[in-house]
Amino acid sequence: MDDDEIESDEPPEAPERVPIPASAAWREGDDPGRRQFFDLGDLPLEADPSGVLPGVRIAYETWGELNPDGGNAVYVAHALTGDSHATGPAGTGHHTGGWWISMVGPGRPIDTDRYFVVCANVIGGCQGTTGPSSPHPEDGRPWGSRFPYLTIRDMVRAEIALTDRLGVESWRLVLGPSLGGMRALEWAVMAPGRVRAIAVEGAAAASTADQIAWATPQLAAIRADPRFRGGDYYDAADDEGPHIGMGIARMIAHSTYRSEGELNARFGRDFQEGENPLGGGGRFAVASYLEHHADKLARRFDANTYLRLVEAILSHDIGRGRGGVEAALSGVDIPALILAVDSDRLYPVSNAVLLDQHLRGSDGVKVVHSDVGHDGFLVESGQVNAHVVEFLEGLS
Amino acid sequence: MDDDEIESDEPPEAPERVPIPASAAWREGDDPGRRQFFDLGDLPLEADPSGVLPGVRIAYETWGELNPDGGNAVYVAHALTGDSHATGPAGTGHHTGGWWISMVGPGRPIDTDRYFVVCANVIGGCQGTTGPSSPHPEDGRPWGSRFPYLTIRDMVRAEIALTDRLGVESWRLVLGPSLGGMRALEWAVMAPGRVRAIAVEGAAAASTADQIAWATPQLAAIRADPRFRGGDYYDAADDEGPHIGMGIARMIAHSTYRSEGELNARFGRDFQEGENPLGGGGRFAVASYLEHHADKLARRFDANTYLRLVEAILSHDIGRGRGGVEAALSGVDIPALILAVDSDRLYPVSNAVLLDQHLRGSDGVKVVHSDVGHDGFLVESGQVNAHVVEFLEGLS
Repeated sequence: MDDDEIESDEPPEAPERVPIPASAAWREGDDPGRRQFFDLGDLPLEADPSGVLPGVRIAYETWGELNPDGGNAVYVAHALTGDSHATGPAGTGHHTGGWWISMVGPGRPIDTDRYFVVCANVIGGCQGTTGPSSPHPEDGRPWGSRFPYLTIRDMVRAEIALTDRLGVESWRLVLGPSLGGMRALEWAVMAPGRVRAIAVEGAAAASTADQIAWATPQLAAIRADPRFRGGDYYDAADDEGPHIGMGIARMIAHSTYRSEGELNARFGRDFQEGENPLGGGGRFAVASYLEHHADKLARRFDANTYLRLVEAILSHDIGRGRGGVEAALSGVDIPALILAVDSDRLYPVSNAVLLDQHLRGSDGVKVVHSDVGHDGFLVESGQVNAHVVEFLEGLS
Repeated sequence: MDDDEIESDEPPEAPERVPIPASAAWREGDDPGRRQFFDLGDLPLEADPSGVLPGVRIAYETWGELNPDGGNAVYVAHALTGDSHATGPAGTGHHTGGWWISMVGPGRPIDTDRYFVVCANVIGGCQGTTGPSSPHPEDGRPWGSRFPYLTIRDMVRAEIALTDRLGVESWRLVLGPSLGGMRALEWAVMAPGRVRAIAVEGAAAASTADQIAWATPQLAAIRADPRFRGGDYYDAADDEGPHIGMGIARMIAHSTYRSEGELNARFGRDFQEGENPLGGGGRFAVASYLEHHADKLARRFDANTYLRLVEAILSHDIGRGRGGVEAALSGVDIPALILAVDSDRLYPVSNAVLLDQHLRGSDGVKVVHSDVGHDGFLVESGQVNAHVVEFLEGLS
């Protein structure tokens, strides 16, 4: 595989079918998504024995302007390894362009010329919001192993505080893929007066045993890396961190994000160029591809953040303490767009069907046809965009 | 989960529907499967640069008697973590009863009162046959990192030598699940005059990119364990070996061996008894289940063997050097029973369909209905037995 082909896993540039008016495109010197910070203070925690995360700072970006009536605010919730930079070019704090540039921007479905769009790095994150690599307020050293256990509800509680701070009475839409979709669901249940519609992509009402099973060796691989040092690796002399363990976790995760059919069609039994796996000296192309993604994430993403966010994903259960999943979903009374990729083997369509069955505001699962699996939400931007545009048009 | 429930993953005892005549059952004191050894000498290797594995010893077991006409010999090929002990009680060198006790034995489909049945530990193994933990002929120290790279064809070449030694002109049937099925396929192509029928369960004509992808983090996890020591861990003072890495590999593998539906139905979001994962102090039941299997395999199975056998599985390509998969399969002209479990996500039914399409002696894929995935071959012994009985009856 050459690097160009590998890089095609990244969120694609704007699909041709959604033209951007020249006048609305990003202009040189524009910096609408400049990262800002909100000092939230103490955040109560649902499950951690400490009960509170002190000194919380939220990194967020905004695009567009809030209307005088406050009716045009849209909240974009990022996935596991995403951040506040939903759209816009690479820049300070962001090595790459926005992760959802096909969806959010001038002339895009979430049109930053019409909507006031906000995206914040989740708590526990490593892209500006308080997380395990942030300084502990008491001693200024990284939180590391001391960082508390988080749930999806803790994340949403922080997002509600940011919403207050921004003066947004209610979001016209909260949307996101995967972990972002879980937060959109929690928004609808936790803050029914503050959100008027949700769009959930590739998520379940509650993380399943199968999803927990795939995550278990990922968490174990990070913790088993001797450079993890129990989570207190930031001051280590080798300056490396548990990159090997993180890479193994990513390899497992990446295979769950793609599909059997796509991997087979794309790689088959090809050897990595110039290598021969037979005899033990080289790699198959698909192994090289996984190692590439492993290395890339290990270098840009904090391992403790990965652990805490995956644990939060596993905690996800919209029905906990609410009489179960059905009862919790049945109480939601706002329009809901439920999207699923037909080849997603991590969050299969059946997960979306259950959401659709119990969410009164859902108009049937919108199935995205794709060969690539869970990652289809970014790859099949044309289909996903069309569903979001239609959904937005249907909102009064 | 209690241990009893977890242990139900093991091969089940004889299903009620296949009664064993009292006169034919194992009797106290019988030891028909007593392990024997065959000193093969030098084994040529297909792909390892060294070209040869010297001083090979094969551990094997036999049951029943070879007819004077030699027509009743059946070879049973074990899967990745199996061994020569296909049937019979626990005993010397075997901590548990036979791994295929439902299939092989007096009155079973592979009836040891009628057939002369042979099962040998594969080369590279850790249950008596020469493998990485065996003494190197030159210095008597474990082979360790010096042990060569193996292919499925190397394994079958060793089995052919054993066949010569046993005086078996041709096998009435070579059968096996998973890695055993790959060897059955290679038998049909490599030694067409020495095998008169094959039964292949849960295997592909060539390991796919998806199968390679699931194996890649497994191999990496073992190699990343500091106790792996590059493969030379046998003399280490801590006497532990890379159990953590092996366990992580097993957790990944185990999830591929089961199905989404079974894991969800069996474990849901249950907490392990007496533990609470919310807050970070405890485990979900499915995580405890995976850790149990991880620990169990790590303690009984050699990590270097696991690496070498998985590498051999990834090398599997019935078409290599033979004009491709179709050409190789089309040249096989003996009856072939092709079995697949409908919920197998590691070796999906499509793998079996491809075999069936090109093997002239196949009479359609026989689909085993099961919720449990790849492991269904052991769990659904009633269905599998019925297919094998019918296949054997159809052989003249």
